[in-house]
Amino acid sequence: MQVNDAQWSNTEKKIAQEAFEKAYKREINTLISVVRQQANEIVELDDIWRLHDFLSARRHEIDGKYDYRYSVLIFVFSGLLKDGWLHLDELEGLDKDKLTKIAALAQM
Amino acid sequence: MQVNDAQWSNTEKKIAQEAFEKAYKREINTLISVVRQQANEIVELDDIWRLHDFLSARRHEIDGKYDYRYSVLIFVFSGLLKDGWLHLDELEGLDKDKLTKIAALAQM
Repeated sequence: MQVNDAQWSNTEKKIAQEAFEKAYKREINTLISVVRQQANEIVELDDIWRLHDFLSARRHEIDGKYDYRYSVLIFVFSGLLKDGWLHLDELEGLDKDKLTKIAALAQM
Repeated sequence: MQVNDAQWSNTEKKIAQEAFEKAYKREINTLISVVRQQANEIVELDDIWRLHDFLSARRHEIDGKYDYRYSVLIFVFSGLLKDGWLHLDELEGLDKDKLTKIAALAQM
């Protein structure tokens, strides 16, 4: 299943971009509070290395995840939906076929 | 220059171990406060990745640095002296030759 650039109307692109940024900001803001909290709970060296491991994993994940290419956006959105960073109604205005695919993939 | 296990008396070993632990605790406690402070100053994602880079570097450095083998201890102590984690008078009781070497290496 590939949905390339040509298949996104200008209106859809605008909706997609806003939803993408909304999810990104939510996840980053959550990450910032989690890191602050973990840092405040640091008592010994092992806590620091646990924080380091956590950041290594999140960096790898976030770097790969927020990929704004129209060819992969359906998958990106379904992942964000699944992880709770985005709600389906925030994608309202995309064509029905895309929404169905995104919702179905998010259930997997 | 190599100073192996046989060249450390029991008294010297005790002094060395205490000094080593003292320096380690000092550095770790400083690291903990620096990390807490950096975490409190996190505003955006880049600050998180900067903290991650900082932790990667410190982990690599600390893992390699605190090496309690008598064959390398002279070098370890000189490094700790140089970086201010240890004071020469905390090594008092080691034989004069070792102290001279440690002090000289710390000046390099």
